[in-house]
Amino acid sequence: MTYGLGMLTESGLIMASDSRSNAGVDQVARVVKLSRYELIGEKAFVLLAAGNLATTQAVQQMLTQALGTGTPDDLFAQPSLFHAARCIGGVLRQVMLQDADFVRPYGDPSATFLFGGQLVHQPTGLYQIYSAGNFVAADDRTPYLQIGETKYGKPILDRSFNAQLDLEVSTKLALLSFDATIRSNLSVAAPIDLVAYKANSLALGPTFEFGAGDSYYDTVTREFSAGLTDLVDRLPNPPRAQ
Amino acid sequence: MTYGLGMLTESGLIMASDSRSNAGVDQVARVVKLSRYELIGEKAFVLLAAGNLATTQAVQQMLTQALGTGTPDDLFAQPSLFHAARCIGGVLRQVMLQDADFVRPYGDPSATFLFGGQLVHQPTGLYQIYSAGNFVAADDRTPYLQIGETKYGKPILDRSFNAQLDLEVSTKLALLSFDATIRSNLSVAAPIDLVAYKANSLALGPTFEFGAGDSYYDTVTREFSAGLTDLVDRLPNPPRAQ
Repeated sequence: MTYGLGMLTESGLIMASDSRSNAGVDQVARVVKLSRYELIGEKAFVLLAAGNLATTQAVQQMLTQALGTGTPDDLFAQPSLFHAARCIGGVLRQVMLQDADFVRPYGDPSATFLFGGQLVHQPTGLYQIYSAGNFVAADDRTPYLQIGETKYGKPILDRSFNAQLDLEVSTKLALLSFDATIRSNLSVAAPIDLVAYKANSLALGPTFEFGAGDSYYDTVTREFSAGLTDLVDRLPNPPRAQ
Repeated sequence: MTYGLGMLTESGLIMASDSRSNAGVDQVARVVKLSRYELIGEKAFVLLAAGNLATTQAVQQMLTQALGTGTPDDLFAQPSLFHAARCIGGVLRQVMLQDADFVRPYGDPSATFLFGGQLVHQPTGLYQIYSAGNFVAADDRTPYLQIGETKYGKPILDRSFNAQLDLEVSTKLALLSFDATIRSNLSVAAPIDLVAYKANSLALGPTFEFGAGDSYYDTVTREFSAGLTDLVDRLPNPPRAQ
């Protein structure tokens, strides 16, 4: 399983992924599910993958190899983020056409993606690409999108996230959403790879790795749990039986 | 769908259920999924149901009709909560034997239950009864059990619930767990039927109905969301890019 989260705000974009891959509980690996495609000052894209690891790695490899070639699979040759999402959906369809029938006897070959970023002079955007290669966009009303194990991490976002938040608060919410998921699903695990893209910077900045022994992730999740318990204590008490 | 939650603490037991039944989004009803079986001073039981409504209602009816008959299906004739749980599992098996093959062409006939309560001079207990009629018990390490749509409501319990909490704080956590679920799954809805059983009282007290226009539920969920947003704001900010 995987948990991938994209958050689109007026300040920019948060793209975050866990890093566990597993085939059964006795075959576990640490992988990178976040890919970066960047031409500083011109284009800045992040792709998060969930699903069959062979499928997602094939898509990422084919996209990387096509960069700068000017072919239809070249992300940098696309005139908009919409076209870039369609390009990724097309590569996914090629991989599925080639592999899916062979893989199905052994397991599910399908994959889904979150794709976000910006081209110069265009708005920041975020798309969810389905197994079928079609896709939907985030907007003000749906400012975050999730792939993989989505349920445990959703309540904190529904209560506290909105498109007006800055990147720092959004990052904290993303980490708390991951922490809720990691506590409940063994197949989702740290480190959390996270890119906080500042709108109009046209540079992705570093990929942070949270929860791989860094004190910040430990501090935030511990302080949050303690604060939550205090908060519940302070809420008014329920009515008593007569 | 359904969300049912049982919480076992040193102070007693919380048993809570939503009240929505649906077969598709265009066939929605409000039902009672919480049944009470009580001989004040002697026995106090609560049963929560999830799954096929015809199956769960048949089980509840058969249990109610058998009360006081001294037959093997008589909950009040059982010498312990363990035996009472086995009795419910047995009734579920009878219903499945009678109906399941006829129902399967149209949908899933199965059902699951949470069963909690106390017999005089015995400890308070809580069981989860599976579709197969077998069951598991809650304990200090697993002090709460869930049926139905369990994922959205789990993170708040994992962060803040433990078996040492009193019934008032436990009730607040239960309502917040329901609120998280109701916000995310249209097929789970208020009112929330809730019994807060005080250990050794051997009387169930009232069934509270939360979220049916009562100001308490509104206040608690609104203050919680506001407090949560403040709490996240106060957490230390993430590291910045160099």
